[in-house]
Amino acid sequence: MRYPNGQSFTGLPHRRNKRPKKTVYGKRGMRLEEMLNQSNAYYREHGIAIIHKKPTPIQVVKVDYPKRSRAVIKEAYYRQASTTDYNGVYRSYYIDFEAKQTDLKQHFPLQNIHDHQISHMQACYDQGGICFLVIHFKQLALSYLYPFEALIEDWQAYQSKESNKIPLERIKSLAYPIQSGYMPALDYISALDAYINNLEKEVK
Amino acid sequence: MRYPNGQSFTGLPHRRNKRPKKTVYGKRGMRLEEMLNQSNAYYREHGIAIIHKKPTPIQVVKVDYPKRSRAVIKEAYYRQASTTDYNGVYRSYYIDFEAKQTDLKQHFPLQNIHDHQISHMQACYDQGGICFLVIHFKQLALSYLYPFEALIEDWQAYQSKESNKIPLERIKSLAYPIQSGYMPALDYISALDAYINNLEKEVK
Repeated sequence: MRYPNGQSFTGLPHRRNKRPKKTVYGKRGMRLEEMLNQSNAYYREHGIAIIHKKPTPIQVVKVDYPKRSRAVIKEAYYRQASTTDYNGVYRSYYIDFEAKQTDLKQHFPLQNIHDHQISHMQACYDQGGICFLVIHFKQLALSYLYPFEALIEDWQAYQSKESNKIPLERIKSLAYPIQSGYMPALDYISALDAYINNLEKEVK
Repeated sequence: MRYPNGQSFTGLPHRRNKRPKKTVYGKRGMRLEEMLNQSNAYYREHGIAIIHKKPTPIQVVKVDYPKRSRAVIKEAYYRQASTTDYNGVYRSYYIDFEAKQTDLKQHFPLQNIHDHQISHMQACYDQGGICFLVIHFKQLALSYLYPFEALIEDWQAYQSKESNKIPLERIKSLAYPIQSGYMPALDYISALDAYINNLEKEVK
């Protein structure tokens, strides 16, 4: 049996081992985003929550307008985002989050987070928005909704060079676990319900 | 004196008259977006509201990775957006809006609005978000915050082919006027305050 790329089928485990590591990482990198996109589509279709991933900001430099066909961008560059990747509305709340994954099993490395993401979440939090990090431990197949109130403490320790990671134990004690499944792939809205219910209890 | 395009300088008013109308429209098209971007930057810098324009969605097809320099996108296409252009958080509310302008003086033509923009606003509204249209009458130099509750009535009349426009008089009676100035260029947050105060009054 031959595949379109001309390679013959040599058995799945073997092929998997032969894959260059970079490709594996890239595929795994997509997986969290795909799971969230699928979950968001599910939430939207069922009227549960309206959350979208923001488009990647691109600086367009040159565009061709061929006759009788659509515009073709011929030169463009990726720009640095100034916000987080996901936002929307749920239970009348403004929701804003960033999603990150790690191959590590004992902690989440804070270098995965960018300064502008923290500043943006802080600004949204100050305005009454609900902000958090979705942390996915790939090797453990565990995901968490980690509230901004906890994250900002870790970030301050990171900025003052006290610590550069969040231990898994701390995440387990402060985060809301996210169940994974078929539909939605990552049911972070159920975790968000638990978080919002706690926030509303505090206010009362 | 000659310009890079080979044309000699023939005086500014003359050149302005000779400009193709399309270019003039393009420039005017930018103005509302620029005014809103400047206003949003002002609101963010002063901690008043956190509202961003979403990046234009672009489908990237081909990317070059030149050695020792950043990635260059060599082929890409504009995609249809599935949401509105602006969203964010203000006074704990999820804010979502689209901005449109017209050259007309007596009404706003509904063909300027896309179906996906209405569906998205309806979904956000159902989830408790605050949705509206910023309408800018260029020739009149007047801008309005037109609530989604009013817009959806016009849209339904448009879908049933009863009417294809919103008369200025209706806008004046249902919208919140937006003052323009130096900083912010379009103070739509003051108009939003009036709208939110009315909504909160209704709830009480």
